[in-house]
Amino acid sequence: MTKPPGSLGRLEQAANRLFAIGDGQVRFGRRRVYVVAGDHGVTAEGVSVYPRDVTPQMVANFLGGGAAINVIARQCGIEVVVVDAGVDAELEPHPELLARKVVRGTANFAVGPAMSRDEAEECLAIGIALAADAAREGIAMIGLGEMGIGNTTSASAIAAVLTDSAPEAVVGRGTGADDAMLQHKIDVVRRAIDINAPDADDPVGVLSKVGGAEIGVLAGLAIGCAAERIPVVADGFISTAAAAIAVVLSPDVRDVLFVGHLSQEPGHRALVDCVGRRPLLDLGMRLGEGTGAALAMHLLDTAGRLLNEMATFDSAGVSDRS
Amino acid sequence: MTKPPGSLGRLEQAANRLFAIGDGQVRFGRRRVYVVAGDHGVTAEGVSVYPRDVTPQMVANFLGGGAAINVIARQCGIEVVVVDAGVDAELEPHPELLARKVVRGTANFAVGPAMSRDEAEECLAIGIALAADAAREGIAMIGLGEMGIGNTTSASAIAAVLTDSAPEAVVGRGTGADDAMLQHKIDVVRRAIDINAPDADDPVGVLSKVGGAEIGVLAGLAIGCAAERIPVVADGFISTAAAAIAVVLSPDVRDVLFVGHLSQEPGHRALVDCVGRRPLLDLGMRLGEGTGAALAMHLLDTAGRLLNEMATFDSAGVSDRS
Repeated sequence: MTKPPGSLGRLEQAANRLFAIGDGQVRFGRRRVYVVAGDHGVTAEGVSVYPRDVTPQMVANFLGGGAAINVIARQCGIEVVVVDAGVDAELEPHPELLARKVVRGTANFAVGPAMSRDEAEECLAIGIALAADAAREGIAMIGLGEMGIGNTTSASAIAAVLTDSAPEAVVGRGTGADDAMLQHKIDVVRRAIDINAPDADDPVGVLSKVGGAEIGVLAGLAIGCAAERIPVVADGFISTAAAAIAVVLSPDVRDVLFVGHLSQEPGHRALVDCVGRRPLLDLGMRLGEGTGAALAMHLLDTAGRLLNEMATFDSAGVSDRS
Repeated sequence: MTKPPGSLGRLEQAANRLFAIGDGQVRFGRRRVYVVAGDHGVTAEGVSVYPRDVTPQMVANFLGGGAAINVIARQCGIEVVVVDAGVDAELEPHPELLARKVVRGTANFAVGPAMSRDEAEECLAIGIALAADAAREGIAMIGLGEMGIGNTTSASAIAAVLTDSAPEAVVGRGTGADDAMLQHKIDVVRRAIDINAPDADDPVGVLSKVGGAEIGVLAGLAIGCAAERIPVVADGFISTAAAAIAVVLSPDVRDVLFVGHLSQEPGHRALVDCVGRRPLLDLGMRLGEGTGAALAMHLLDTAGRLLNEMATFDSAGVSDRS
């Protein structure tokens, strides 16, 4: 192609990965972000500055098209599908809402497991089935988004266990915790790990003990994408925690996995190392919803198109290096 | 808006800057990348792995739509306009080619000035006039792209002078120099500075002594964008060298300036510090043509749309933080 070798940097590497995932061709088609929502019993510990009601309210906002992910997805030509995996409210039916409620909010994992092992497995199965449905619908790329007040606490606990990190290294401010709330969040994560004793070699156990329903469905989506050979783009901290569970359960997830952006949450770097995929963007974002995934999906689409549409030195009559 | 304050990170900062540039509104409209081309007499020193003929050949490739910038621009809805500022060839007329040839290639600045002071001023005037034309056409954002075999050597010399850096700190491999060519390029830049004695406080002098015609037109475009209040996005190493000349000449250029991506060229960091704008992307690219600018223009468009289209907590019925 009419460019010095390697000069497109990580876009070129991404295009090569897309080519390999597509078994010798970059597959184009509809792209979709799943915004999976769930509530967290750990909010009873006072770990978030936003009230728990915000989870169903934001689901309504996603369905109404007014959230950040909607704006980004519209601009990038990406579909948004909202999944209720564990919202603690009865949600009105809506054509773009998939009702897959496993729990009405998890239990408070600071005092016991977030959910049963059966429930965790059900979350994974739902995600795997969603990926299979998407493959049948011709979806060519999937982004992992989430919404759930309290879920940075869950993702921090998962990060601490899977990356063998101290809670203080992987707990951050989430949607805006002050110093006192941050310290409290660290204490809550430490307590959750002491009480539940999750085992890093048993990712389903980690998911049931300190995870969340939306995290389980996202992990299942990543596993399903590996099975269907669909490129899957994690967003930031929470969805990379889900991807990390998926990678530990099923190492071939890494083949189809991209990480959209580096979150401002301090635990994200450890999770990024765990999944072995460098984030494409680093914009200091910490919103979730799949916003960083959608932006990265646009870059990945660009990367694929460059591979498919650029002229060669021969076809364009350009002299190659001597 | 329905997001925690600051959670969109640098997109949010960018949106605020676009709002300020638009004097209280984000202006949307056509977006355009100028790919300005010029040849460099310093190629006589053997500083590039590609032959000089590649400059006019790539101009034809841009006009034919087969280059990387064409693919990216098509995908992002951005116009590409090619400008001949100093190509050492007679180019066929084409509706998307602006004939603004100031020199037929610069002179070899390793033995004397690249061009006269009058020619350097003509380049700046051409760029300023292009920005004024763009404003009349309703262009809402401009990207700075370039093509010119040998122009990393020119940009390195500009970087060394404007940032008071040693040549070895700001000379890189360009399109693929090996160790021997890299050392030779460093020596050539040192010789160019010794012979021409450019003065950092006289940016027009720097442009005429060690610059290039495309770099001058790009610097003029940046100055014109400041006058027209059009956001202008530098690409990588060479266009940031142009932006640095513009900022030193006219500090209000900084108000409208964004830097698209961090180039792999080692001298880019010094230039980025000089213009005071952090690159939006860091993808290890080093292609030029405006490719990194176009990708960043898409992100900036997203940033502006987020500011304009997102629901507020009130309008979406979402509880704000307690």
